[in-house]
Amino acid sequence: MKNTFGQSVSVTLFGESHGAAIGAVIDGLAPGIKVDEDFIAHQLTLRRPSGAISTARREADKYSILSGVWNGYTTGTPICITIPNADTRSNDYQRSAARPSHADLAAYCKYHGFEDYRGGGHFSGRITAALVAAAAIVIPALNAKGIYIGTHIKSLGGVADRELGELSEDIASLAKMEFPVLDASAEEKMKSVILAAADECDSVGGVLETAVIGVPSGVGEPWFDSVESLISHAVFSVPAVKGIEFGAGFGIADMRGSAANDAWRMKDGTPVTLTNNNGGINGGITNGMPIIFRSAVKPTPSIAREQLTVNAETMEDTTLSIHGRHDPCIVHRARVVVDSVTALVIADMLTQRFGTDYLSEGAK
Amino acid sequence: MKNTFGQSVSVTLFGESHGAAIGAVIDGLAPGIKVDEDFIAHQLTLRRPSGAISTARREADKYSILSGVWNGYTTGTPICITIPNADTRSNDYQRSAARPSHADLAAYCKYHGFEDYRGGGHFSGRITAALVAAAAIVIPALNAKGIYIGTHIKSLGGVADRELGELSEDIASLAKMEFPVLDASAEEKMKSVILAAADECDSVGGVLETAVIGVPSGVGEPWFDSVESLISHAVFSVPAVKGIEFGAGFGIADMRGSAANDAWRMKDGTPVTLTNNNGGINGGITNGMPIIFRSAVKPTPSIAREQLTVNAETMEDTTLSIHGRHDPCIVHRARVVVDSVTALVIADMLTQRFGTDYLSEGAK
Amino acid sequence: MKNTFGQSVSVTLFGESHGAAIGAVIDGLAPGIKVDEDFIAHQLTLRRPSGAISTARREADKYSILSGVWNGYTTGTPICITIPNADTRSNDYQRSAARPSHADLAAYCKYHGFEDYRGGGHFSGRITAALVAAAAIVIPALNAKGIYIGTHIKSLGGVADRELGELSEDIASLAKMEFPVLDASAEEKMKSVILAAADECDSVGGVLETAVIGVPSGVGEPWFDSVESLISHAVFSVPAVKGIEFGAGFGIADMRGSAANDAWRMKDGTPVTLTNNNGGINGGITNGMPIIFRSAVKPTPSIAREQLTVNAETMEDTTLSIHGRHDPCIVHRARVVVDSVTALVIADMLTQRFGTDYLSEGAK
Amino acid sequence: MKNTFGQSVSVTLFGESHGAAIGAVIDGLAPGIKVDEDFIAHQLTLRRPSGAISTARREADKYSILSGVWNGYTTGTPICITIPNADTRSNDYQRSAARPSHADLAAYCKYHGFEDYRGGGHFSGRITAALVAAAAIVIPALNAKGIYIGTHIKSLGGVADRELGELSEDIASLAKMEFPVLDASAEEKMKSVILAAADECDSVGGVLETAVIGVPSGVGEPWFDSVESLISHAVFSVPAVKGIEFGAGFGIADMRGSAANDAWRMKDGTPVTLTNNNGGINGGITNGMPIIFRSAVKPTPSIAREQLTVNAETMEDTTLSIHGRHDPCIVHRARVVVDSVTALVIADMLTQRFGTDYLSEGAK
Repeated sequence: MKNTFGQSVSVTLFGESHGAAIGAVIDGLAPGIKVDEDFIAHQLTLRRPSGAISTARREADKYSILSGVWNGYTTGTPICITIPNADTRSNDYQRSAARPSHADLAAYCKYHGFEDYRGGGHFSGRITAALVAAAAIVIPALNAKGIYIGTHIKSLGGVADRELGELSEDIASLAKMEFPVLDASAEEKMKSVILAAADECDSVGGVLETAVIGVPSGVGEPWFDSVESLISHAVFSVPAVKGIEFGAGFGIADMRGSAANDAWRMKDGTPVTLTNNNGGINGGITNGMPIIFRSAVKPTPSIAREQLTVNAETMEDTTLSIHGRHDPCIVHRARVVVDSVTALVIADMLTQRFGTDYLSEGAK
Repeated sequence: MKNTFGQSVSVTLFGESHGAAIGAVIDGLAPGIKVDEDFIAHQLTLRRPSGAISTARREADKYSILSGVWNGYTTGTPICITIPNADTRSNDYQRSAARPSHADLAAYCKYHGFEDYRGGGHFSGRITAALVAAAAIVIPALNAKGIYIGTHIKSLGGVADRELGELSEDIASLAKMEFPVLDASAEEKMKSVILAAADECDSVGGVLETAVIGVPSGVGEPWFDSVESLISHAVFSVPAVKGIEFGAGFGIADMRGSAANDAWRMKDGTPVTLTNNNGGINGGITNGMPIIFRSAVKPTPSIAREQLTVNAETMEDTTLSIHGRHDPCIVHRARVVVDSVTALVIADMLTQRFGTDYLSEGAK
Repeated sequence: MKNTFGQSVSVTLFGESHGAAIGAVIDGLAPGIKVDEDFIAHQLTLRRPSGAISTARREADKYSILSGVWNGYTTGTPICITIPNADTRSNDYQRSAARPSHADLAAYCKYHGFEDYRGGGHFSGRITAALVAAAAIVIPALNAKGIYIGTHIKSLGGVADRELGELSEDIASLAKMEFPVLDASAEEKMKSVILAAADECDSVGGVLETAVIGVPSGVGEPWFDSVESLISHAVFSVPAVKGIEFGAGFGIADMRGSAANDAWRMKDGTPVTLTNNNGGINGGITNGMPIIFRSAVKPTPSIAREQLTVNAETMEDTTLSIHGRHDPCIVHRARVVVDSVTALVIADMLTQRFGTDYLSEGAK
Repeated sequence: MKNTFGQSVSVTLFGESHGAAIGAVIDGLAPGIKVDEDFIAHQLTLRRPSGAISTARREADKYSILSGVWNGYTTGTPICITIPNADTRSNDYQRSAARPSHADLAAYCKYHGFEDYRGGGHFSGRITAALVAAAAIVIPALNAKGIYIGTHIKSLGGVADRELGELSEDIASLAKMEFPVLDASAEEKMKSVILAAADECDSVGGVLETAVIGVPSGVGEPWFDSVESLISHAVFSVPAVKGIEFGAGFGIADMRGSAANDAWRMKDGTPVTLTNNNGGINGGITNGMPIIFRSAVKPTPSIAREQLTVNAETMEDTTLSIHGRHDPCIVHRARVVVDSVTALVIADMLTQRFGTDYLSEGAK
């Protein structure tokens, strides 16, 4: 349904980069979830550009919760969060030349020129701030159920982080880090790569790896609403993502079954798998092991170098040098967005499975 | 919605591997689409196991169209297709030991033991025959609009096919091949790899690469119903798929923006890109270039070797040697299923965009 | 979604009156519901024409459950039920003249002549047999939760039944009656009215009144998924229904608030209302009192008298005398269909509210 | 989906009566619809209380369009409209005693006391202002297609307006009237009845009759998305509506088929019916005739008289005299809300049928 996603817990997105405000409506969330305003602000900070490795646009993200929260708790009715756009420079944008690998030309075909193209309009990554704010209400409720989500930058511009190890602890720390890597030395190298690209009027991409622990077994659906289907649907809504893989992912294609299969063993009364090549999902349903997936984030398409393109209105060849304020890399900023959409999907699946009170902290 | 997918054109799946029948209901399809029964039968053939590289289970797939088709044309009302299960050997199955990397244990947690576990029940790849039959009604209508879908086996058990070249012609031929590779010599090597694995009571996986040509620009949605979101949602419903990537996919993460961006040029009055690293999709919307994606298919989890596992009912450690009839590889059989779900998604998006008559051949 | 209705428990309908078969797919129903085949057969009997007051078409309704039921219990996966069409006389139908107050002309505009018009095709009341069979799986599960649904013929051709009294007992008996009236003498009078109309090549309509007891308080949604919204959505899907009202219904429009308001009092530890003018629903949500609504069923449009009409193909005036086999009244047959769609809606709302196991009889 | 309704054009509602703001998100609307801000303001005026016959609460309804509109036209992306709550007196409300025939007790069961009960919270009729504003963007686009919607007060407190006559002209005038009656003398009488009820600390209800002209034939669906199903689903979302009937409605139940059937005749090259007892809908699909329906609106449940009730928290009997500011009648205010939800449903159905550009005024 276009800008609404989710069955039992849904989120509806709206807004353009240079319009009055962006925002989201979360519906179906249990009543009685304590809303942590500091946490919302913190999550928005993780998405916000900062320093030389990001765009110079500075947004305070002074969000407002217009509905659905009262006396510090969710009421069970729809929550609308809006975030005003403050630091906009619309003059930086013109429609005449379609920015390569942006949606400009495709949007023109769809909206016939009525689209607000300033700053990418409704296609802008800025809209993800609303997703982050929405999920920041959901995440503490998941945590209260023992469910934690964490993402690290697995690689960026060719620099690799170390492998995910023991999941629980790493994840707790990852979710709070501004530049989430497991190997501290990788941060320095990755940032150097970003700055080097920026110096050359270029940009870099990377791969994010996400782990979700604590989701009970037996959640999800065999066919169209498989856990992979729902997570990938949500993650591909994050701008710049061009690939996703679960467990061993593309690597599993080269394994033999005897190596790929995850053997079961009982441990402390609970079945666990000795490997997790299926990323915690069998037949579309959680199997109790951590859900693991990786998302490929492309290099920011906005670069200052001159590029070949066409004019969407005149349909003539032209060239374009994108000025204005842009990110040489958005991988680290995309991280909290991936965490956020994952949280929303998990909350939806759990609410479908266990009912609308499941994430509530209980009657007042 | 669990077993229903699609907004304007939807498909509802039902059935278990060893039940009376499997089937699908397609709803929202335009009236006036000519139904090609030979083509349906042919598509089912492509999915059907054959020869030494497949399971010994032999199903004639004598499908019945119960509704929605009259005088050889779609009527515009829901089409129900059923396929009976004939060659079932339920005694080959027992619940006691959960088959590793199958859904057995997860299903037990979800359905509390009421699930029909015979042959994988509702989780069985057999259910995809219904998807194939359903899509076989849709595909000719897409073809009539100049839209073609083709998939080749990009790699299998470590053996690679050659790269996709000029798309149009290759696709026309791919869609008819039983074992679709661009490089004829790859077929022999891949089949050898499969047989070698089978000899060792093991299995192999692979990667499928799909191209869709002819979809007009401006179809899809910026956020939750991006083309990537809808295709990945559908493709991850295909059993054994663990990864999907569009355009340059995971490879784009290592590119710089200047290399990754797809420059636009006018060609014969139409804008085209010089590269297609975005796989025909910008901002979630088609840009007029071929849609390209790759799906990672895991090795069949059913292998004859002894495996460690647990008993779902007693929750005790045990071992399992899977007997019965199984595929040493399902990559080539999964191909037509991926084509099929892709066709269904494309038909849905076009119907949403252009209305319920779009795929009709016109008034009688 | 056209032929699919319901969020957590959904039903998908298919079939035409003179096609191979009609049927339904029920999805999302809990595993572990005991399936009572005798009850399904009985419910189909209630819908089936019988005697002089109905059409002469005789269908055995030999339904088949193709999936989703195993060892006598629901498995939790989609249940497909098909019912073959046996006693069809397609020659009785021709498209040339649109039958007044039937869908013929509207359907021609929508489907451009590709529609299967024989016997009304997909618009036929016959398709409701699939709804009845589907609901017959759900109703015993509701009963097991203390939820009962019953409908009587409140009026038929101007003859009124007596008012609903103490609900629980009446409902238990109503649900089993072939011609459900509270006042036995009304049956005779109503049947006379039907036969008199039939003698004059005419038809009669009536009003059904439905009560649902035992639904817990707090189920439903304030806005678009109010209990009234969902029930009316489903009931207006039943052919021939042209009106629905809850509680005091249209009568409440003439009351003053002081008379219309339902005062609350505690009774045996539970709040009850002294009147039930709101039909058990406040603000779209159940309030614990019986849900009460009435549906207006129009007289069968198929009558043997000559009628003025137009030819859908030539768009010229013509006249039509409908031959073939038709019901002089469908009110009594519509009863079990209204019960059935009500049961499906209640099951959906409860599953959304309390989770997918709520209607299960528990782990095996 | 709870607070979201519509498939191709959907609206998502949020807000509470005494919260920061209420609002709506409209998604899927065509790009290129001219937005008439004066018309939006006018429509809000029609809903706003005024004079002695309404509550003393005065809201300026200074709405903001946060997204989806640019340079005076819809962009094709989601439109968020917010309306702040200004004139709130939360001290007038307490939870202790459930207001009879309001949602208080049912809401307490659903939300466990976390609900914002002030002024009815999310259940308040105030939320309908957002629906009115949303529809005010859609209505001019329908008008541009020759589709007009109008509603008159058919009866109020026992006073009847005259019958709907020639539809086109009446509707054009009705849609602009503050107190829409066809017979000017009825206005005076109805207002007297309202004031008399107010004097006695009581309230009155009434019946609204709505006509929609210009919808082409062949729109809607045979089964679950019948025109009656979709309109009733939307209209029952309007607080206080307890009944709906189409065409001859409940009256058709007492007719014989020969009188009820709408005979077809050609007129100026178009088929028309000589009567319209089916309210423009056959088999769930528009037949080209005006869509006609009536909605029963109950008397405002908030009255100053002492009423018997229970305390939702202590579950003890108590009494309640509702103070604060309330409407002695909401029938005339509900009118524009019914028009609005009707417009949204029609826009949704047309967009599904004819594609996402249908309501656009064309490329810029």
